[in-house]
Amino acid sequence: MSASAHPALQPILCAGQWRASADASASFRASDPASGAAIGPSFPRSGEVDVEQMLAAASAAAPQLAHCPTTRIADFLEAYAAAIEAEREALVASAHAETALPITPRLAEVELPRTSGQLRQAARAVRECSWTQPVIDTQAGLRAHFAPLGKPVLVFGPNNFPFAFNAVAGSDFASAIAARNPVIACAHPAHPATTQRLAELAHRAVLDCGLPDATLQLFHALDPALGLRLAADRRLGAIGFTGSRRAGLALKAAADGAGVPIHAEMSSVNPVFLLRGAVRERAATLAQELFASCTLGSGQFCTNPGLVMVTGDAAGDALVGALAQRFDAAPSMVLFGAGVQHQLVAAVAALRQAGARLVGGRAQAEGPGWRYAPGLLEVDADQFLAQPLALQQEAFGPVTLLVRYHDTAQAVAIAEACEGNLTGSLHGASDHSDDADHARIARALRPRVGRLIEDRWPTGVAVSAAMQHGGPYPSTSNASFSAVGMPGAIRRFAQWQCYDHVRDERLPDELRDANPLGIQRLVDGCWSDRAL
Amino acid sequence: MSASAHPALQPILCAGQWRASADASASFRASDPASGAAIGPSFPRSGEVDVEQMLAAASAAAPQLAHCPTTRIADFLEAYAAAIEAEREALVASAHAETALPITPRLAEVELPRTSGQLRQAARAVRECSWTQPVIDTQAGLRAHFAPLGKPVLVFGPNNFPFAFNAVAGSDFASAIAARNPVIACAHPAHPATTQRLAELAHRAVLDCGLPDATLQLFHALDPALGLRLAADRRLGAIGFTGSRRAGLALKAAADGAGVPIHAEMSSVNPVFLLRGAVRERAATLAQELFASCTLGSGQFCTNPGLVMVTGDAAGDALVGALAQRFDAAPSMVLFGAGVQHQLVAAVAALRQAGARLVGGRAQAEGPGWRYAPGLLEVDADQFLAQPLALQQEAFGPVTLLVRYHDTAQAVAIAEACEGNLTGSLHGASDHSDDADHARIARALRPRVGRLIEDRWPTGVAVSAAMQHGGPYPSTSNASFSAVGMPGAIRRFAQWQCYDHVRDERLPDELRDANPLGIQRLVDGCWSDRAL
Repeated sequence: MSASAHPALQPILCAGQWRASADASASFRASDPASGAAIGPSFPRSGEVDVEQMLAAASAAAPQLAHCPTTRIADFLEAYAAAIEAEREALVASAHAETALPITPRLAEVELPRTSGQLRQAARAVRECSWTQPVIDTQAGLRAHFAPLGKPVLVFGPNNFPFAFNAVAGSDFASAIAARNPVIACAHPAHPATTQRLAELAHRAVLDCGLPDATLQLFHALDPALGLRLAADRRLGAIGFTGSRRAGLALKAAADGAGVPIHAEMSSVNPVFLLRGAVRERAATLAQELFASCTLGSGQFCTNPGLVMVTGDAAGDALVGALAQRFDAAPSMVLFGAGVQHQLVAAVAALRQAGARLVGGRAQAEGPGWRYAPGLLEVDADQFLAQPLALQQEAFGPVTLLVRYHDTAQAVAIAEACEGNLTGSLHGASDHSDDADHARIARALRPRVGRLIEDRWPTGVAVSAAMQHGGPYPSTSNASFSAVGMPGAIRRFAQWQCYDHVRDERLPDELRDANPLGIQRLVDGCWSDRAL
Repeated sequence: MSASAHPALQPILCAGQWRASADASASFRASDPASGAAIGPSFPRSGEVDVEQMLAAASAAAPQLAHCPTTRIADFLEAYAAAIEAEREALVASAHAETALPITPRLAEVELPRTSGQLRQAARAVRECSWTQPVIDTQAGLRAHFAPLGKPVLVFGPNNFPFAFNAVAGSDFASAIAARNPVIACAHPAHPATTQRLAELAHRAVLDCGLPDATLQLFHALDPALGLRLAADRRLGAIGFTGSRRAGLALKAAADGAGVPIHAEMSSVNPVFLLRGAVRERAATLAQELFASCTLGSGQFCTNPGLVMVTGDAAGDALVGALAQRFDAAPSMVLFGAGVQHQLVAAVAALRQAGARLVGGRAQAEGPGWRYAPGLLEVDADQFLAQPLALQQEAFGPVTLLVRYHDTAQAVAIAEACEGNLTGSLHGASDHSDDADHARIARALRPRVGRLIEDRWPTGVAVSAAMQHGGPYPSTSNASFSAVGMPGAIRRFAQWQCYDHVRDERLPDELRDANPLGIQRLVDGCWSDRAL
């Protein structure tokens, strides 16, 4: 299919040009999730020719970018952040139309500023250079630091953050660029127009700042089989993926087989333990806060509390009753699309099949558009422990499974049965009566979660150097790294490189005797920002 | 097969006890590589019962070890280092008998002190705690650091370092223990008695220092299929492997499929570029040094220069002639075992099949024992570029492939055709006449190697924080980490963990307000060793 045969299809960004797909195999449009109606223009699903051209262009751009002055990279990140803010109203309107997420506070006041702020944090990390962790051993004649991959990074964005995790604007993008690698971005087809507009802003900033033309390339969708072939292409330096466990595991298998490093964030039920004293002390408050966390963004958060342990006593019954009332009274909530609705229906059916009872709300798909009536499910601890894997599958949306436990040993056993998760939370009594239980459960939970949270809810991920938005498999593919928070997230897309007796003038600036960047370096075991 | 049925088999170290294998499926003895004669006692090949008991014991020990005071870990590493030094003569004699490596300088003066020194470096890293990289964000209420996996690390040792990479004494062992994870060690069957003696010393130090009984466990060999099942066991926190590409890729596939992080060092031909001016300037010296590097330890080094680019001019001919004379005059060299000899014969046959010509030495297996007559192979650059993968396969032993190149563009193309390697070296003229060529080739080589070396040879790996003993796939499974050099190597066996609004008394010492360990921490963007 030639481009001229489909003049109505939106262009892709390939090798520095916005141009028609060379071999679109299909086309698609966004939909208004609230009505289900198709909206906006048609976008191409790219074929092998597009992919091959992007790989070639990115491979040529990679060494150029790796040798680009760091200030130019930082300038780009800041220029792009400013461009996003300057277009804030149009971007927010577009994202709202495609995702049905609220304009305020979510899109305009939270997610967009977070996205531009994250790009600026990446710029700051690039300027101060600490992410490269320079180490100099003068006696051994060795110098090492984290350096660009010298190859492109393929980024798959998720459905649930049209800005903050967008493949052309989010943390994976900012991290890969900060590490001086070109990005080949696969937009999420749930918000193509928003992604295209962001990519236009990014590409203009690329050109304005004098970065290589192919620093960012974008396709809107791929045939899944082609996506797997691309993930196994050794011309890639790394892959960043945020999405479902099924898609993530398929990409991970393809990438692993080819030795392509992949950072995949795949799923998490984010266990929450409500301890006995806390339930007695503040059942109503906990019910209110938990409901808000469960249903925030229609429950479509990777840190959504999907598995909540509540005591089996009368206070626990009261909490569950109050929570069930809130679920009963909740209106149906708009999901991102037909796929999310379909998978949620299937996940809830599987949880019910495994013995979960509906104790609040309706837990069912509704119309118009892609709606779902929130649901509160419940099992007893014994049931959970008999089928811990079946009852831990993620129901992405406004659905939470309660597990009623009867003693601390059961709670510890549940924690030990938890798969790897992004977060784990414990709520204890303010009078310290839960402290002993807290210690035992936290000890079991700690190695199984990336972020251990106390007396707060898991939704909401601060962009901080001290964040861990990551966790043990299968929540992510690698618990050593965080997907959020500069400068750590940058190192996901870098390699550790050593120079052995290399002449000073041939070293990268970070490692030269004169320390021209004036950065902190570990020199013979001591941190120093001085010249050698 | 019950233990009592095989009273002659050596014990394994399982759950704190030296005891007979519960289900040995076979037995083996070491051999004297110089004669091929079997030596020493018989060792069991363990079965599922042994493996299951070790996994259970290590899983129980892991949380205990994770909460063990760091000083006790450091004490253990130092006590073990001292015990190795105290037993130096017996250990060296045992390793010499099993490997035929020279007692001096190699085993007694280089490898053993390096091994005890590495354990002491790990102890120092544990005491000063910088490997945990503590980060505190007071505004966001977040604190994070690298922490133990909470699960055991499975370590497979290689054949070629009976001490420094031994599964019970080498860098993987030291790193995993420093990160407070128990180790399940798979000895290399080429040196079982040496490994057993080291494990006895380690286990005694474990008990003396009050670490959990199952901190170290040891089996001597496994059925390969059982090894793959073990690698895919999710009770493992990580795997460290050093060995052949074939074994490494099989383990990696098993581990990847189960989401078990694996750090595998698999193969490297360590490309060396001899630039035009250097060849003209010092052909005889280069030939002499190259021969020494190629044949050190019978060429059985992961950093052995297996692929050397030499100019096709008359000076290059002279260098190749001088080198060929050295190969011609070399005696046959003892390899570690029948398997190494067999694989070397197969690799050389494949290289010759792909067009490599023998231009020096004999390149053939010889007796008695497991000997091999060194061989120098040669291809033209065009040939190499026509079949770059076939001509890059590792011939582990005293065999080097020369590639004769005719201009800089060819040399750059060869560098670009290189797979991921541990090292890459360039030798240039002292009069700077090679500087322009150096720049072009180094730029192509840099992202493809872990350590870029100038005017030196790749054999010899300093234990330094500035080392990268690692490199892009397929030389290792992950170019972000070095297998050698504290504290970086420790982080291979750690996870990044965040605490979100956790009470001070519940935090690990590294992250508490008072900074009781007095360590450097990144607090709100600034390094500080002060209390908050």
